[in-house]
Amino acid sequence: MADTVFDTIAIIGVGLIGSSIARAARETSAARSIALYDVEGSVRREASKLDLGTVTSSLEEAVRDADCVILCTPVGALEAVAAETVPAMKDGAILTDVGSVKGQAASALASAGGAHVHVIPGHPIAGTEQSGPAAGFAGLFEEAWHILTPLEKSGPDYETAVETLTAFWAALGAKVETMDVAKHDRVLAITSHLPHLIAFNIVATAYDMETVEEGDVVKYSAGGFRDFTRIAASDPVMWRDVFLGNKDAVLEALGRFSEDLAALQRAIRWGDGDALMKEFERARGIRQAILEAGMDSSEVNFGRNKPEE
Amino acid sequence: MADTVFDTIAIIGVGLIGSSIARAARETSAARSIALYDVEGSVRREASKLDLGTVTSSLEEAVRDADCVILCTPVGALEAVAAETVPAMKDGAILTDVGSVKGQAASALASAGGAHVHVIPGHPIAGTEQSGPAAGFAGLFEEAWHILTPLEKSGPDYETAVETLTAFWAALGAKVETMDVAKHDRVLAITSHLPHLIAFNIVATAYDMETVEEGDVVKYSAGGFRDFTRIAASDPVMWRDVFLGNKDAVLEALGRFSEDLAALQRAIRWGDGDALMKEFERARGIRQAILEAGMDSSEVNFGRNKPEE
Repeated sequence: MADTVFDTIAIIGVGLIGSSIARAARETSAARSIALYDVEGSVRREASKLDLGTVTSSLEEAVRDADCVILCTPVGALEAVAAETVPAMKDGAILTDVGSVKGQAASALASAGGAHVHVIPGHPIAGTEQSGPAAGFAGLFEEAWHILTPLEKSGPDYETAVETLTAFWAALGAKVETMDVAKHDRVLAITSHLPHLIAFNIVATAYDMETVEEGDVVKYSAGGFRDFTRIAASDPVMWRDVFLGNKDAVLEALGRFSEDLAALQRAIRWGDGDALMKEFERARGIRQAILEAGMDSSEVNFGRNKPEE
Repeated sequence: MADTVFDTIAIIGVGLIGSSIARAARETSAARSIALYDVEGSVRREASKLDLGTVTSSLEEAVRDADCVILCTPVGALEAVAAETVPAMKDGAILTDVGSVKGQAASALASAGGAHVHVIPGHPIAGTEQSGPAAGFAGLFEEAWHILTPLEKSGPDYETAVETLTAFWAALGAKVETMDVAKHDRVLAITSHLPHLIAFNIVATAYDMETVEEGDVVKYSAGGFRDFTRIAASDPVMWRDVFLGNKDAVLEALGRFSEDLAALQRAIRWGDGDALMKEFERARGIRQAILEAGMDSSEVNFGRNKPEE
């Protein structure tokens, strides 16, 4: 059990991530007291039933005593939520988020003003294809990366705040790193955003073929395809906001992907087996690098810490 | 334990599938005696060490007493291997295969002549990303589909042979169906071949970005991307043969995929969130259909029966 890092935290948005933070913070005692608020009444009721902490009936009530406020809404909602949150926060408190696009998140949080609070955008590289408060679990962040993208401002108070927030995520089990906002968004575009876009796309394509093949696409969808349907089951609102929020980096990664795919298509059409082999060996190369980095898929993957697995 | 279906089977090509058949046939007693041959001496030695059955030093020796010969080579090698196999087989024996492309496999087996044997192409929809004799395991075919694509010829002897081969795969735990060759290749193009092509491609694209981002693509490759690297670790020779062998159906599926992807790309560029949502909801629809068909990814997926998982 880790030491208590914050006396009080507030979690705004109680989905998979928000509810997992609540569970992990309680289990590790990283926060002594946990306030939660969600804009949806049904989610608040579910959070109460799940006993995740003190569920409040207003955002202001949740955040006013918090030493750290964690915004866990979709990225597209961050600007509006931050604008409501910041004026209600106490002096010297920390404001962070868990959005997958840090450029947009950083602007959203910064635009809320709030010279009296420490804005430190963040992103846990953890998740499952499940959504909602019941889907959360305390182990979600264990051994997962947590990336903080501190603003370009300094001063001892801000640095202390970054250290404290780092200690909080470390207490939940995460490996914390700081990174430049733009680099975060480029790296995540290729490791997370593009793969999800592709998964959504291939599953939608198959859905059309399903009609043509009268049920046999679903029936025989073992093998590679099944992995895609799982990824494509992720929350559509969250992902819409990610793709729109990280537009430039996603389009850049997508452009490279499409060029490479066109080359494979040409190799298939012309029966160029050597060109295919060359690409496939390259793909195995990065797999090898991942294994050598000690990050086997059995250890670190999408939803890897799910208790029922 | 099932009844013995064949007195003697011969397995030609002792990789993941061939060695799994040997293990499953022994464990279930579906075959009393198992002969194995692989063109690679190192694979034969490994198969001997693994005690998978009687490993012979020539193909002819393995097949001459077999009631059923199962060709487990990559699809591209089938024609040459069948030409060597058929003349050595005894009258009335069954010749089958496990290739992922049935149009090409059926031609390859049929071209070997052999009016004295019953040619019945087949395809187990099962596998893992591992290769080689040591990767096989007896449970690989349990609850997996096995598709037989009988030739367009009939007669009571042939029908009996199809029934016997069906009983053999059922004894290994598979759910056996018969299907038209062309339909098989269309359905597998979308459920298996295209997903693998996409996985190979996205991982190769990421490999290039890895150089640009100085190691951070591998470092932060949790989430969706990890699933792709696992799929892309599959045997490149096998997949090269699949893409070349099922060219028309793969190009057709790839064309649909690229059209759909272009629409998503346009929606991202123009900030059209509604269009994105519509596609993502469609993707969730097919996921739902799979869950409703009782084929959850936790029950039936790629490598699902691996003993160490």
